[in-house]
Amino acid sequence: MLDAARNLGVDIDSVCGGRGICGRCQITVGSNPKIDADPDRLSKRGKTELEYRGRRSLEDDHRLSCAVTALRDVVIDVPPGSQVHRQVVRKRAGVISIAVDPIVRLYYIEVGAPSMYEPAGDLERVMTALEEQWQVTGVVLENRLLADLQPALAKGVRSITVAVHSGKRIIAVWPGFHDVSYGVAFDIGSTTIAGHLVDLASGRVVASSGRMNPQIRFGEDLMSRVSYVMMNPGGDAAMTRAVREAINDIIGGLAHDGGVDRKDILDITLVGNPIMHHLVLGIDPTPLGTAPFALATDRPLTLDAVSLDLDANPGTQVYVLPCIAGHVGADTAGAILSEGPHRRDPIQLLVDVGTNAEIVLGNRDRLLAASSPTGPAFEGAQISSGQRAAPGAIERVRIDRHTLEPRYRVIGQDMWSDEEGFDAAEVTGICGSGIIEVIAEMFLAGIITTDGVIVHRDTPRIVEEGRTWSYVLVDGPNPISITQNDVRAIQLAKAALYAGVRLLMDHLEVDSVDEIRLAGAFGSHIDTTYAMVLGLIPDCDLSRVSAAGNAAGTGAMMALLSAEARSEIEAVVRSVEKIETAVEPSFQQHFVEAMSIPHKTAAFLNLQSVVDLPAPSVARSDKPRRRRREESA
Amino acid sequence: MLDAARNLGVDIDSVCGGRGICGRCQITVGSNPKIDADPDRLSKRGKTELEYRGRRSLEDDHRLSCAVTALRDVVIDVPPGSQVHRQVVRKRAGVISIAVDPIVRLYYIEVGAPSMYEPAGDLERVMTALEEQWQVTGVVLENRLLADLQPALAKGVRSITVAVHSGKRIIAVWPGFHDVSYGVAFDIGSTTIAGHLVDLASGRVVASSGRMNPQIRFGEDLMSRVSYVMMNPGGDAAMTRAVREAINDIIGGLAHDGGVDRKDILDITLVGNPIMHHLVLGIDPTPLGTAPFALATDRPLTLDAVSLDLDANPGTQVYVLPCIAGHVGADTAGAILSEGPHRRDPIQLLVDVGTNAEIVLGNRDRLLAASSPTGPAFEGAQISSGQRAAPGAIERVRIDRHTLEPRYRVIGQDMWSDEEGFDAAEVTGICGSGIIEVIAEMFLAGIITTDGVIVHRDTPRIVEEGRTWSYVLVDGPNPISITQNDVRAIQLAKAALYAGVRLLMDHLEVDSVDEIRLAGAFGSHIDTTYAMVLGLIPDCDLSRVSAAGNAAGTGAMMALLSAEARSEIEAVVRSVEKIETAVEPSFQQHFVEAMSIPHKTAAFLNLQSVVDLPAPSVARSDKPRRRRREESA
Repeated sequence: MLDAARNLGVDIDSVCGGRGICGRCQITVGSNPKIDADPDRLSKRGKTELEYRGRRSLEDDHRLSCAVTALRDVVIDVPPGSQVHRQVVRKRAGVISIAVDPIVRLYYIEVGAPSMYEPAGDLERVMTALEEQWQVTGVVLENRLLADLQPALAKGVRSITVAVHSGKRIIAVWPGFHDVSYGVAFDIGSTTIAGHLVDLASGRVVASSGRMNPQIRFGEDLMSRVSYVMMNPGGDAAMTRAVREAINDIIGGLAHDGGVDRKDILDITLVGNPIMHHLVLGIDPTPLGTAPFALATDRPLTLDAVSLDLDANPGTQVYVLPCIAGHVGADTAGAILSEGPHRRDPIQLLVDVGTNAEIVLGNRDRLLAASSPTGPAFEGAQISSGQRAAPGAIERVRIDRHTLEPRYRVIGQDMWSDEEGFDAAEVTGICGSGIIEVIAEMFLAGIITTDGVIVHRDTPRIVEEGRTWSYVLVDGPNPISITQNDVRAIQLAKAALYAGVRLLMDHLEVDSVDEIRLAGAFGSHIDTTYAMVLGLIPDCDLSRVSAAGNAAGTGAMMALLSAEARSEIEAVVRSVEKIETAVEPSFQQHFVEAMSIPHKTAAFLNLQSVVDLPAPSVARSDKPRRRRREESA
Repeated sequence: MLDAARNLGVDIDSVCGGRGICGRCQITVGSNPKIDADPDRLSKRGKTELEYRGRRSLEDDHRLSCAVTALRDVVIDVPPGSQVHRQVVRKRAGVISIAVDPIVRLYYIEVGAPSMYEPAGDLERVMTALEEQWQVTGVVLENRLLADLQPALAKGVRSITVAVHSGKRIIAVWPGFHDVSYGVAFDIGSTTIAGHLVDLASGRVVASSGRMNPQIRFGEDLMSRVSYVMMNPGGDAAMTRAVREAINDIIGGLAHDGGVDRKDILDITLVGNPIMHHLVLGIDPTPLGTAPFALATDRPLTLDAVSLDLDANPGTQVYVLPCIAGHVGADTAGAILSEGPHRRDPIQLLVDVGTNAEIVLGNRDRLLAASSPTGPAFEGAQISSGQRAAPGAIERVRIDRHTLEPRYRVIGQDMWSDEEGFDAAEVTGICGSGIIEVIAEMFLAGIITTDGVIVHRDTPRIVEEGRTWSYVLVDGPNPISITQNDVRAIQLAKAALYAGVRLLMDHLEVDSVDEIRLAGAFGSHIDTTYAMVLGLIPDCDLSRVSAAGNAAGTGAMMALLSAEARSEIEAVVRSVEKIETAVEPSFQQHFVEAMSIPHKTAAFLNLQSVVDLPAPSVARSDKPRRRRREESA
């Protein structure tokens, strides 16, 4: 039946090549209107199947297609688990369907014995077996494995399993039959490193793990790490060591959690922003710290895991997705691969906010990418009480439109601050999404003008600080206030983001976008309504604005599971138009225009139905005077 | 003028790409009947040439073609030193002409500055420069060098020199201009390791070095080393370490002798018999020790020098010539490349005698190769007083036809033993060529019959030993005798050699050969007349029998200097017909027939004019009786 399927072009999986060992080629008997589902239409279980059942489980109605023949006309079903290119649906990272087609494949072969009548090397006999038994040609064996080949052939009594990378290179050899292969997809963030251990045969995620990027001790955000290198020549080597150790720890943890031998990890994919990309690869990121932000390379890379000091199988290759430009990294490439604007018609805006905002805009016809210098305000930096999103950080805020009293929620507690049992002592600061909400709420409550000026209102919540006013969000011994400088920092950040988006829209010649995907941690935590109130994002039907989750990591996983996905993102990255905001005069103009809140009535009015907006007149009451004060300050 | 030459397809060398830095593109003014050799036909020396003369010497009539223009019609001569594919004639290793075309080439490039207007990685800018300035495309940078690229560009003020391997891979990068590149050709013999340091630009041998193979402590000959591994599992690792250390020592010594930075050694080639080949590569040679003598691989290999623990440039590649069969190694491939039977019409017999004899026979139409199990007798092993060719070993012998008194010469002394001043105390044994001579001389003096039996003669030189006779070559306190067993050992060895040759002649369907080349140390020391007396080699005009010297090492050097030579030998090795003597019934028959001395009257008679042959009747006098005694012994 396996032969018949292959003759018909039906892809049934197999590692052992039809020898009744691997059990990948299972089929069931189906039916159609003319032919019933009588199991007797197939030959009885023979020695091969009975022996297989002695070793592994085989359901009663499942048959090994390599070991049965058709006695009469019969309808055959190929269960998903037996399909070579089965579709995998990942629910946690959005509904993305991937045809599993890993770059590393295992082939079990039986190799002819050496003979003096046919002089040839054993390597050549292996190649002949691969060609005859699997129609795999033009493969080379890594030099490193030459010394392992004959011992494996001897131990496996002339049978071995080889792992072939991209149909070209044998990267591992085992004596006899071997049918487990795993991969790990890594997303190297400035703050967090996440890894997912995946069974390359099934596409199943076996274990996931994340930990802090240990480089944080060299600097909280990216630019401070580049500064560290500039101040400490050679400091990049220490950071490279730290991040590689963390990756190794994650590999070890994943292997342990998944009950997997780390020598069975045969493939690794990796995404990260340009600076993480360079540091993992051992490249000094200093040139990325100053204009013109020159990448060492924007090509995809396939490297020996060993060359990155990573401990997996000695033959494991690491695929690093391509960077797009000096500030638009492999993480953005991963997000594009995951979100797929290039596969569809709607104009999608894909934004990942970090120290910079990476912006991608377009559809199947044309795709543009840029980075906008938002600075780290959205991450809580440069904010008087700002902090990273961590337990104790305020992430949700509501302000009563009349009393101007706030209530808020912090990460790590389920209750709002005005609910019974809320522990005020646990509040440590305010994170990025909290900042967005409090400033948007202050605006909606009339505390801030459209120009971003905090106005005096008759409540103890508004206090004077120097020549400006602040809003007291948390009072008590450790007060948390939103200062005029905090508002200015967010205004600058959101103006930069919006100006970048606007610039790409100009290039694409569109006035609105069809959908907006907010990637990354910030995008997952932010309330899209407030993002629109503040004018972070352009006009778009609010129902089509959503969080993309860890799109970059999902892209890394897709690249791990699919050779085609790699080709796809490489082609997209080559064709994507890179826009450099710093050299585009209109960026400055958009930036200035985008300082106000909200800068555009259309977006403003759309929100009337969603949130309780103040009358514009109130917000604008003392704008001129305050503005002058601001300007003279 | 350089541009004009290129347009016309005249290959003028250049590393700097016409920037007046490297001085490789020198030309002179020539003449023809219509145009005189007036130097004023070229433009005057300008700034570039004057600056170059300030740094390096430039002969008065030599011009830098990149810096001059033609003012009128002019005839240009390109001196050999300025030709890319200059012919190198090596006299020491026979007159072999090689067109220098090394696999590693240097390219100096000036790389565009990074710009925000043209987002790209610096690697991509390097590739663009290579393409625009050298028309070199499709090159990849080794991952290892990614981290070095931007520092080199910075240090060289955006100019670098790259070393490109086989037109495909950048294996080294230097800041600014760099124009020295060297290679080392190695011949890894069981006894001796020889290396030649070569300037890859000129093809000039800068230094040569040889030393004992330190593996000798694991066993004198090849088979005893394989036995060592069989008796001491893992013992191959110690031998691999020993030989790699020796190679490294040679590299260090050559670099020192040549005044060369070992980091400028960018290419290495290597030949050796199959067991040496495997041991250098770290492959257990055990399978080569027993039938069916399975090679790990018979392909050519290109490996990182680093993977072999060799200390040269970190990017240096090692090219290992292909092995031909289980007993016919990369050394034979090197010898074929050097001797070139496949390039010519005459039927050439190429023989390299060691523990086995590697035999190659054929011409441009057809080439056959085999190994014949001569055993180590020709190397002095299995001979009662045998020793390796080293000072103190008897290498030349003459026996007076009437008195049967011998005279001899030893390695390390210029005199014969009957000359004044000869130091008899220095005689330590007899080496391979000495054995051949003494047995041939014994035969010619009538001491040995054509069947190889030592007959009694009335002289104290012939002494009884058990049931056979011995010939006393050296008397005194440390006598050296030639025993019946010694004669038998040589008979077996020479019969094996001759039978192998005969087998190939049968396959090729020829009765004689046009020329015979004896490669290796044995071939260099042996007197071809005696080789023919004993019947080591088949019928051939004696004037066309000659020593080929270290043909294997010469082949390694050719592969080092010429990419084309590599393709050539790879194609030849693929097409050569491998004959396995052990499975050919006619080999046994030839072997039995070849035991006698000399086995064939034609060869015998050809020699009458050269040496003083005895009357056949004498030699055959007591054959029947002696033979029976031998057989019963």
